[in-house]
Amino acid sequence: MTEIVAIEQIREVLPRVDLVEIIEEGFAAYSRGEVVVPPVGELLFEDPPGETHIKYGYIKGDDYYVIKVASGFYGNPKIGLPSGEGLMLLFSQKTGLLMAVLLDGGYLTDVRTAAAGAVAAKHLAPTAVQRIGIIGAGTQGRLQLDYLRQVTNCRRALVWVPDASETEPFLNFFEGSDLKIETTDSIEAIPRTCNLIVTATPSTAPLLEASQIRSGTHITAVGSDTAAKIELEPGILAMADAVVADSLPQSESRGEVFRAVESGAIDGDGVVELGNVVMKRARGRKSDSEITVCDLTGVAVQDYQIAKAIYESLVPGEES
Amino acid sequence: MTEIVAIEQIREVLPRVDLVEIIEEGFAAYSRGEVVVPPVGELLFEDPPGETHIKYGYIKGDDYYVIKVASGFYGNPKIGLPSGEGLMLLFSQKTGLLMAVLLDGGYLTDVRTAAAGAVAAKHLAPTAVQRIGIIGAGTQGRLQLDYLRQVTNCRRALVWVPDASETEPFLNFFEGSDLKIETTDSIEAIPRTCNLIVTATPSTAPLLEASQIRSGTHITAVGSDTAAKIELEPGILAMADAVVADSLPQSESRGEVFRAVESGAIDGDGVVELGNVVMKRARGRKSDSEITVCDLTGVAVQDYQIAKAIYESLVPGEES
Repeated sequence: MTEIVAIEQIREVLPRVDLVEIIEEGFAAYSRGEVVVPPVGELLFEDPPGETHIKYGYIKGDDYYVIKVASGFYGNPKIGLPSGEGLMLLFSQKTGLLMAVLLDGGYLTDVRTAAAGAVAAKHLAPTAVQRIGIIGAGTQGRLQLDYLRQVTNCRRALVWVPDASETEPFLNFFEGSDLKIETTDSIEAIPRTCNLIVTATPSTAPLLEASQIRSGTHITAVGSDTAAKIELEPGILAMADAVVADSLPQSESRGEVFRAVESGAIDGDGVVELGNVVMKRARGRKSDSEITVCDLTGVAVQDYQIAKAIYESLVPGEES
Repeated sequence: MTEIVAIEQIREVLPRVDLVEIIEEGFAAYSRGEVVVPPVGELLFEDPPGETHIKYGYIKGDDYYVIKVASGFYGNPKIGLPSGEGLMLLFSQKTGLLMAVLLDGGYLTDVRTAAAGAVAAKHLAPTAVQRIGIIGAGTQGRLQLDYLRQVTNCRRALVWVPDASETEPFLNFFEGSDLKIETTDSIEAIPRTCNLIVTATPSTAPLLEASQIRSGTHITAVGSDTAAKIELEPGILAMADAVVADSLPQSESRGEVFRAVESGAIDGDGVVELGNVVMKRARGRKSDSEITVCDLTGVAVQDYQIAKAIYESLVPGEES
């Protein structure tokens, strides 16, 4: 029997899941070669502009496979609709039967992406984070900051808000929390005062330049997940002591690593995979003075891990 | 609001849809270049053996896009489960919002495939069909025969039943119909007595040989939709006067055309697309003595057309 799971149920169950841990395990399994992840399916629309990604795959020998759809139609807010939409389909790997339709509207993609940012920071941020810098004040910027609290003691944040109307919702979300958040419309202030930076925008032009980055900085680039999007000047990846990607195969066709290789700034050979950094099979940060970059394009194993966890939390007796 | 549509609702609405007509229109739009269909997504499982296809796309400028999942786990019947499973997701092309989840369990894929067989026969079968030959007595063989009644006056059929236990369900399905059906366990009898033949098995070795095919025969090969599956000896495609494929791009990597090109039997340049035959832009059958072959691997535009039709029949006011 297929479970149809509404967003309300998903939000209720999610706090029971240790998301950072399962996403970390997912990346490790991926880098061990235990995960089957075909190339990302993609539909691009021009009028109105929109994009849809289909990510799918499974952990070999485990119980399920997952197909995840997430879309972004960035003109939607102007007509009173959310820009993001999506759902996750969980199937049995033994019978092909559809176990669950998770009608998350893209929320699970958002939180598993935020959890990946936390995994990256856990393994790559300098020991003492002075201030967290968030570039982009949308849903993803907010979630990144929210999940970073699980992996750093730093409680100061500076947020670059490209659209002033986003300031209030962002600050309201964290009202009553232990975070001390300031906002800015001057992006330069972020690399000048923050040594753990997350970029979370749909930008198609670099937002940070190499000359702005101080030693001892870690940057997680979350926004770019297509060939067209870019947030970091390629020179930043060239100057970094370690460049990490969630998926080496995906970084050949999308994201910051793709763009830096395409521009000739790096040759790509030195890029290592986040799962290997997690397992200490690849070098991450060696000292607090190094510059590190982690490029996240989003891997289906994250969707697998979160869909499985939600389903098993909802349906008693399904824990395997 | 997302409509969750159960199989019972789908079965209720389906008779209101002129499936052969909309599938024919879909192939024509596809061959006119109006349809965006990225490469098929695929997951293959070994233990137990199973496969899942993800087909997706849209007609440019129309209202929706569709993502279709269909799987086959051929060991399922042994444990009392259906071998097929699937669902269709219908999204708005204007907002990306999920309009409907059609929980068809693979049924809509089955019927849109059968309707494609009818379209192929409508345009390629000889004028006088003496007897319809069906190779394979599973769900697809049964549906092919059912839908062929819409495009031919012939009411005699011979069915090759590879597994004797399938005979009774097959015949029961047509009880009370105007069809005169005989079954056989001798596959040679099919090409000897039938001039409209449909192959509908998951075979990975050729079932029909070139030496068996008489002039004036049309064969629609439905079963092979992967690189591994094959039902026709490549020599059949080499001897045919017209070889037609539902999708030329897909026939470069899967199906009978792929296998015949791979074996060197044909060079593939002469293969034409079904939509172009429908529009009379490409040659189909020129005389009743010719041999014609149509290779169907299944195109997302079929899924698009059927999902759209079901949705618009279910939700009043959504007709566009």
